[in-house]
Amino acid sequence: MGTAKSRGKPSRGSATIAGRPIITLTSDFGLTDFYVAAMKAVLIRHAPDARLIDVTHQVPRHDILCGAITLERAVDGFLPDTVHLAVVDPGVGSNRRLIIADVNRQQIVCPDNGLITWAARLHGPATIHEITWRPDKSASNTFHGRDIMAPVAGMLASGQNIAKLARPIDDPVMLDEAPADSDARNGRIIQIDHFGNATTNISHETLRSRSGQVVVRVKGRAIGRLKRTYSDVAPGEPLALIGSSGLLELAIRDGSAAKRLNIRVGDEVVLR
Amino acid sequence: MGTAKSRGKPSRGSATIAGRPIITLTSDFGLTDFYVAAMKAVLIRHAPDARLIDVTHQVPRHDILCGAITLERAVDGFLPDTVHLAVVDPGVGSNRRLIIADVNRQQIVCPDNGLITWAARLHGPATIHEITWRPDKSASNTFHGRDIMAPVAGMLASGQNIAKLARPIDDPVMLDEAPADSDARNGRIIQIDHFGNATTNISHETLRSRSGQVVVRVKGRAIGRLKRTYSDVAPGEPLALIGSSGLLELAIRDGSAAKRLNIRVGDEVVLR
Amino acid sequence: MGTAKSRGKPSRGSATIAGRPIITLTSDFGLTDFYVAAMKAVLIRHAPDARLIDVTHQVPRHDILCGAITLERAVDGFLPDTVHLAVVDPGVGSNRRLIIADVNRQQIVCPDNGLITWAARLHGPATIHEITWRPDKSASNTFHGRDIMAPVAGMLASGQNIAKLARPIDDPVMLDEAPADSDARNGRIIQIDHFGNATTNISHETLRSRSGQVVVRVKGRAIGRLKRTYSDVAPGEPLALIGSSGLLELAIRDGSAAKRLNIRVGDEVVLR
Repeated sequence: MGTAKSRGKPSRGSATIAGRPIITLTSDFGLTDFYVAAMKAVLIRHAPDARLIDVTHQVPRHDILCGAITLERAVDGFLPDTVHLAVVDPGVGSNRRLIIADVNRQQIVCPDNGLITWAARLHGPATIHEITWRPDKSASNTFHGRDIMAPVAGMLASGQNIAKLARPIDDPVMLDEAPADSDARNGRIIQIDHFGNATTNISHETLRSRSGQVVVRVKGRAIGRLKRTYSDVAPGEPLALIGSSGLLELAIRDGSAAKRLNIRVGDEVVLR
Repeated sequence: MGTAKSRGKPSRGSATIAGRPIITLTSDFGLTDFYVAAMKAVLIRHAPDARLIDVTHQVPRHDILCGAITLERAVDGFLPDTVHLAVVDPGVGSNRRLIIADVNRQQIVCPDNGLITWAARLHGPATIHEITWRPDKSASNTFHGRDIMAPVAGMLASGQNIAKLARPIDDPVMLDEAPADSDARNGRIIQIDHFGNATTNISHETLRSRSGQVVVRVKGRAIGRLKRTYSDVAPGEPLALIGSSGLLELAIRDGSAAKRLNIRVGDEVVLR
Repeated sequence: MGTAKSRGKPSRGSATIAGRPIITLTSDFGLTDFYVAAMKAVLIRHAPDARLIDVTHQVPRHDILCGAITLERAVDGFLPDTVHLAVVDPGVGSNRRLIIADVNRQQIVCPDNGLITWAARLHGPATIHEITWRPDKSASNTFHGRDIMAPVAGMLASGQNIAKLARPIDDPVMLDEAPADSDARNGRIIQIDHFGNATTNISHETLRSRSGQVVVRVKGRAIGRLKRTYSDVAPGEPLALIGSSGLLELAIRDGSAAKRLNIRVGDEVVLR
């Protein structure tokens, strides 16, 4: 993790899109309730010109690891000056802190529960502030996404100085589960996507650093050597490849690896 | 309900965000078909600069009560001059009317089937107009959301005078199910959210007006006294609290109250 | 299909909304992963001022026919100069081509796998180009939606000349399944919507061209004569009507025709 020195107000340079700040939203709120729109109503009140981009609101309930992995993707995909609002917040109303993490010249606004782990590890160092700003009228005890985090994200996006909203800290909560070391001989399944493809925590670089051909095993089954893309195997056949996020991925061509190989998040993956 | 006198064209004052009108969308259309985008294509044709904010398109099919409760949340969350397009319309193609409801200086465009009930009760009085505008080429018989309501919502958002689109009426359809009276001793479950939290029709004010401690019972089970937030009980334990909408809510910490307590919309909730 | 002559750069005339280009998105990516936002991040990098409208991301996995039918609806609903990005791409990483189809003065960017079939048949002729543009750093082998198609869609939306991105071709892949001929005596179910309504490939015009009353049969069951709208039958009763897309549709009032009549995509529909 980075030190707590503030980088100050981010410059709104050429990276800002058409002069309009970008705010992304990631949550476990689902799409059936008013919750997401409630945050958007607040965001555009504080940042009237902001572009709002939904990352997903279907992080499994309270699944901080999944939220952290998704958030890293958002930091990877967007340009400097983007503000990311991420709300997976099982501790809402408790004394858990709310933070602003400055990573890769982007700002993440989220609870201090480990959500920043993957973004900080892969794009860090991260500079962390604890949010001290509170609304004039008291916040609800159950929806700090709307009452504290969205206003702060909106104010950051419209150029408010971070020093008026938060104070530096250097001990953010971090998850144990993290990208595998570059000399690792095994790793884990960290995410199952919509297609049933299973992403591991083993990076492109880790595989490249190993001499010879790598054979991937999961659940006692050898998946074979690394392929380039799905169509390198016959329909219904399993394969291992580097996915679009640069991580080792297990897939079934035209099928669901999660179902067919009975893979779950947390399962061990072994390199031979 | 309010009288039918028109408040005239809403002023586009300081509340309008960056000079851009805001239109929210609420429907039971789901997210698999082209229907939502069909309405958006029409909205931006009539209001080229409008911001479109999805509230939800996953209101259960034809569930007007759920739509009405969701719509009230939207009126609560957004600023004056917002236009809300709400389409839960089992009577499409019949002789049910289409209306514009002016509530809390916001405008709702929807079928006259009770969708405005909660917004009107909690943010009223409401001024109601029946939409008389019809498209030049004949509308479809099955998609008035696209062919009549979206054009009208777009025209309102871009400042069109309501008198050119509609005529005052004073007998809108209202649902029986409504917020509980302030001296009520019981109420009902009105909505189950994505997390399985169960919202009742009993407001913060109702509870505050009762002397002494309130114990909440549902399905013959005492939930105990009012708590402040989820983390005030142990994981897996039930609790009653005031939710983010200001209504009494039943929840299970880190679990689904709906599943664990077997609660459904309509179930009675008793205060002791 | 049209000839391969280029219509050149589309003029950004009065149809462009408030000077801002419109890009729609259709895919089978679902809403749980970062994939959709990854494409949006790229789109706004290349077209900073574009309006992004989601059509749906819930096309069933690899269901090109469903994607093609949905895409036709998008071309029908939007104005000239709209750019449609459509990614249902089971052949990603193989040697399948990527194309730009110019249809009805709108541009579709998609894999060359038949996705354009319905839009081209109903709004054609289509002018087709194969995308020759490639990114400076090599594209992933599994996500050309992000790495090739989104940049191209963004560049087209911001006015880039198509000749710098692609070359004319005249042999695009087309699906066999297509709208029924105008003198057809039968057709097929082509789509089941969120409500369980079943759309056929038989158009309004086909029905109008037949003399006398038409009786519709599906799965050996006579649905009866054409009705005008759902409320023309009692709740729970089946009916045939012209849906909002101008095609013959089978429905159950206040119910699911797909479930109640056991209808699936591909089932035959007979006109008597």
